[in-house]
Amino acid sequence: MTGDLDNLRVVLVAARNPLNIGAAARAMSNFGVWRLRVVNPYEVAFREARSAVGAAELLAKAEQCATLAEAVADCRLVVGTTVAGRRELQHRLQRLDEGARAIKRQLKTGPVALLFGSERFGLSNQEMSYCHWMMRIPTREEHGSMNLGQAVAVCLYELVRGRKTAPAKIARGKKEKTSATSGDVERLTQLLLKVLGASGYVKTQSAAATEEKLRRLVRRMELNTSDTELWLGMLRQVAWKLGANDNS
Amino acid sequence: MTGDLDNLRVVLVAARNPLNIGAAARAMSNFGVWRLRVVNPYEVAFREARSAVGAAELLAKAEQCATLAEAVADCRLVVGTTVAGRRELQHRLQRLDEGARAIKRQLKTGPVALLFGSERFGLSNQEMSYCHWMMRIPTREEHGSMNLGQAVAVCLYELVRGRKTAPAKIARGKKEKTSATSGDVERLTQLLLKVLGASGYVKTQSAAATEEKLRRLVRRMELNTSDTELWLGMLRQVAWKLGANDNS
Repeated sequence: MTGDLDNLRVVLVAARNPLNIGAAARAMSNFGVWRLRVVNPYEVAFREARSAVGAAELLAKAEQCATLAEAVADCRLVVGTTVAGRRELQHRLQRLDEGARAIKRQLKTGPVALLFGSERFGLSNQEMSYCHWMMRIPTREEHGSMNLGQAVAVCLYELVRGRKTAPAKIARGKKEKTSATSGDVERLTQLLLKVLGASGYVKTQSAAATEEKLRRLVRRMELNTSDTELWLGMLRQVAWKLGANDNS
Repeated sequence: MTGDLDNLRVVLVAARNPLNIGAAARAMSNFGVWRLRVVNPYEVAFREARSAVGAAELLAKAEQCATLAEAVADCRLVVGTTVAGRRELQHRLQRLDEGARAIKRQLKTGPVALLFGSERFGLSNQEMSYCHWMMRIPTREEHGSMNLGQAVAVCLYELVRGRKTAPAKIARGKKEKTSATSGDVERLTQLLLKVLGASGYVKTQSAAATEEKLRRLVRRMELNTSDTELWLGMLRQVAWKLGANDNS
């Protein structure tokens, strides 16, 4: 997939705000998409955006196109983005997740353009006429209008989503670590029982019932080996302080 | 799902930039998430953000919390967000798409907090210690750091994505029972800390590190309400026996 993303061109049409252009570029860099084309940007905005933090190289290499036709000329698939609440479209409309699947297929064979309209108006009918189909970000009907950088981030996320990235680094926690042995778990149960006995929590007449209750409780914790060690260490100290003999 | 989203609390921890707070609020409004909590924001930033376009009502209702503990107290699941390239984590780490599935299940039963750290540093170890697990947005290793508003947009998109699918099955096992609230879990953590202090297990010079370690340990237990009560009862007795004052 990483290689395929080289075929993706993010095309910002008539973007007006340098912060938004910079934010779009940063999102591209975050998700590993490099080819940015800006069509007819507000000149000052584009100059300012080039100094945006975190995506300088990407912005320096951005291509400035006079027309949308020029920006999509080398692409075999051109997809426009839109949000809820837009006027009636003449185009076939796909949900973002479905559309992304189609785009990913196409990226294997050649360049694809993904179009984002201006902050205020989105893509015009004239601009949409360059698109094969439109892709809709599932915002609310009552507040569809998205920030440009966020729209780019969400669309690119959908394209890299489910990609087989290197597994997340060091994932700790009970599910990855070795579960404690039953022997250790029982040792912990007995030590807890001893501590509770020394503290007066366990009354003699109900000791058996309490022991069962504790045994179930400790097993519900689904402890791994290192957490079991931690608990044993803590309880040993408490038992010692309470004057309870500990042979665990 | 729409109804379930009422249970989601977006928690911005130590956000510094009013544009980012406003952008996060706008993304929330786009995707139909209403409950924003800001922990210890830069005061001026929060005031300025309240005037942000497109999400005024949401920002007006945002809750300002002095501490993270307060912001997550009513939540039964607390999930932190992170990106690629973060330092080694002590937490279980889930991919965003997998984590979102778990969050959606939990949203059916009660409040869930989704945490976003400060723009520059993300969540600190101390802040992460309030989380049950962490969720990773799949940015590139070489440029992981995301814009705050974009990170919120991508995570919320993943939560509303594919909304029309059949409801997820009811999770079996301990999760069938109501999970303990973060408030109760923190109460348990503090009581355990007190018991360990009285027993001499916690040395003064390492108290802060131990507190974080314990907080993670207790959260890994993923306790339900009745087991939490059981633990609190046991520890109160032990604390009393050790002569440690208990107001929990």
